[in-house]
Amino acid sequence: MMKNAVYLQHSILNKKSFLCVGLDPDPAKIPVSYLNRDTAYLDFCNDVIQQTCAFAIAYKINIAFFEALGPKGWEQLESLVKCIPQDCLVIADAKRADIGNTSKKYAEYYFERLNVDALTLHPYMGMDSLLPFLEYRNKWSVILALTSNSGAADFEKKTLSSGIMVFEEVVNRFTESEFSDHIMFVAGATQTDQLSRLRMSAPKAFFLVPGVGEQGGNLTETIRALRNDREGIIINVGRSIMYPYGNQSKPDDIRMAALDFHQQMSIFF
Amino acid sequence: MMKNAVYLQHSILNKKSFLCVGLDPDPAKIPVSYLNRDTAYLDFCNDVIQQTCAFAIAYKINIAFFEALGPKGWEQLESLVKCIPQDCLVIADAKRADIGNTSKKYAEYYFERLNVDALTLHPYMGMDSLLPFLEYRNKWSVILALTSNSGAADFEKKTLSSGIMVFEEVVNRFTESEFSDHIMFVAGATQTDQLSRLRMSAPKAFFLVPGVGEQGGNLTETIRALRNDREGIIINVGRSIMYPYGNQSKPDDIRMAALDFHQQMSIFF
Repeated sequence: MMKNAVYLQHSILNKKSFLCVGLDPDPAKIPVSYLNRDTAYLDFCNDVIQQTCAFAIAYKINIAFFEALGPKGWEQLESLVKCIPQDCLVIADAKRADIGNTSKKYAEYYFERLNVDALTLHPYMGMDSLLPFLEYRNKWSVILALTSNSGAADFEKKTLSSGIMVFEEVVNRFTESEFSDHIMFVAGATQTDQLSRLRMSAPKAFFLVPGVGEQGGNLTETIRALRNDREGIIINVGRSIMYPYGNQSKPDDIRMAALDFHQQMSIFF
Repeated sequence: MMKNAVYLQHSILNKKSFLCVGLDPDPAKIPVSYLNRDTAYLDFCNDVIQQTCAFAIAYKINIAFFEALGPKGWEQLESLVKCIPQDCLVIADAKRADIGNTSKKYAEYYFERLNVDALTLHPYMGMDSLLPFLEYRNKWSVILALTSNSGAADFEKKTLSSGIMVFEEVVNRFTESEFSDHIMFVAGATQTDQLSRLRMSAPKAFFLVPGVGEQGGNLTETIRALRNDREGIIINVGRSIMYPYGNQSKPDDIRMAALDFHQQMSIFF
């Protein structure tokens, strides 16, 4: 089943939440009680899911942390996907993209074998590099537009001779495509002065928003600038929920951190 | 040991070759005799290496094809890296990049655990997203500049208000950095009318050049446009060497295909 825009809108309204919990299992921050296990990442992430699933509409798995472990990381990743409640959107944050025959392999892995609902993608190589993902019409292609890091100024925010910025060209190109109903864009919450422009470029799109929490983006401003009449935003919080007290965080701390974000969001409903 | 620019120059002069063999184990094209084995990709790629290593200075492993298999693909990948002769440059073609703490995990995997010499990277997110790779000064960061696919026109070749194209901005930004001595750029051989411009943007850099062979780029024109006084080019050929007669290719066919490319290159020495 496609968790399409209507599904996401209902999910947000039902839970009074835009919250996506980022699953970034960092060995430097995972409580030590997990670290001596063969399945430390899986067990810790699964506990985070249990503590947060009442408040979250989505989970975003940071693939790099699993990839860093080699084959045993991928085994844990494949188990983890099955631990996420079925009503939540599952986003693989892998930031892939390559020429067609290669993107096709990535698409097969994430959309068929792993069977996640959404995958993050680099737009640099252009439309044809993303076609193998976009052709999965029951899955979300989540395309980087304006990211939350300062390096976004290097290329994403450069102005083109046409007067718009590179990230706007990206948003326009994909919004005008026949695939727009299953495309989301990444919009960093730290990019305060660009969020309204982003929303104007893609009035109907969902945005996946990193940068709230540890990276310093303002939650309320982000919601005000990006929310549309379909709700239209999924706000990712990773480290601030997983590690509220560093590697000393207890399950209750994680639950309270997620509850805190949920309360800040629920006042908008 | 760092296989730096001087090492690569010697390697090219010694072998009279710019040839990088692309290892893209496509299940639709691998001879059927391999396909019923648990380690089909590893065995086939290893046989390709044996047939081609007299002619090649580098191997480029297409990570997507291994990733598509899940944990067992990564096991084969980790074994494959050890099969490549020590005098050849090992390039992981993974096209990664993310915010700093996440790029750090990718860098750890490819540059430490897998211990390849070079890794391909997406520049879209800017300098800070690539710093964790660039800080490995004994490894090559291979940054996408102008790719070989037609989608390169969508963003890479858009003109900025400053008058240069996006790919030139990418080349300039990284060439001017303190890391330039271990940065290569990807330059698609199909981009005939841009290759001289690319070389002017980065007179001293090595270019990794896909697009010769199946994608239609002209070998001789590419060498004439991009070669510099350090030799400065690594030309990747994948499918035309691995599958000269589709899935009917025999080891000798693979050897002859590599020899053919080597002969076309050796006349330049």
